[in-house]
Amino acid sequence: MSHNKYHVIQDEPHRWRNIEELVYKDEDGAATFKDVTRRVLFGEDHVDGMEVRYFEVDAGGHTTLEKHEHTHLVIPIKGKGACLVGDEVLPLAMHDLVYVPSWAWHQFRADENEVFGFLCLVKVERDRPTLPTQDELNEMKSNPAVANFIRHQ
Amino acid sequence: MSHNKYHVIQDEPHRWRNIEELVYKDEDGAATFKDVTRRVLFGEDHVDGMEVRYFEVDAGGHTTLEKHEHTHLVIPIKGKGACLVGDEVLPLAMHDLVYVPSWAWHQFRADENEVFGFLCLVKVERDRPTLPTQDELNEMKSNPAVANFIRHQ
Repeated sequence: MSHNKYHVIQDEPHRWRNIEELVYKDEDGAATFKDVTRRVLFGEDHVDGMEVRYFEVDAGGHTTLEKHEHTHLVIPIKGKGACLVGDEVLPLAMHDLVYVPSWAWHQFRADENEVFGFLCLVKVERDRPTLPTQDELNEMKSNPAVANFIRHQ
Repeated sequence: MSHNKYHVIQDEPHRWRNIEELVYKDEDGAATFKDVTRRVLFGEDHVDGMEVRYFEVDAGGHTTLEKHEHTHLVIPIKGKGACLVGDEVLPLAMHDLVYVPSWAWHQFRADENEVFGFLCLVKVERDRPTLPTQDELNEMKSNPAVANFIRHQ
């Protein structure tokens, strides 16, 4: 067994030793997502100010539709899903990579019959997400592909 | 087909669309490694000054034994191997994570019968690696586990 705090061991697929499952969001916005869990693989004392998280979205579930100044680097490692980034809907599968730039609207969804899991790198020091206003939602929905994709309450 | 430059698509396992295979190192040190290829998945105009590379080490191969100021975040995504980090030898397999701190000696090896592939995140702006002097090698080799693991010419 390794006692190196910089060594995170996957004991079974998509489950890591001494890494607990967390709720996706502790704060507000519980109505904005569906069936998402979170695990922090590398936290704040690691990796030059970067955090590495693993999110798992159950079949049919989705993360919050949001934007913020900080960026995401996302690497799917389980199942299939898709994401909105800005005004594009991108299919995502194992070992693809996608980058979410500053202030791009984004949302991740699992396919209907697939649990979708992905690593997500962020800065430790980061701003809080912003949810869309009704005007912003209306503007997003003027794009049929986006309107069809997004889930928001 | 996606034309989003922030979307990198894995077309077949561990091979990505429009991402070419590169030699592991262009510069000096060709005698210091064995059977390693490199692919740059996200390069210098991405991810807040971070690069994401994929390295693949053929069965029995190894990267260069080296150290530097910049750090690595490594995520194995194919096969099995091991690494030296500082004075520890750590086994590595699919979806483990390991962080290489500044100035830690490190080397990655594939198992004898396994191609070993891993993602490695680094800063775009980074220093050149330093190779061990004979004195440093001798000191490393005073630890039997390290002596047994490292490969260096």
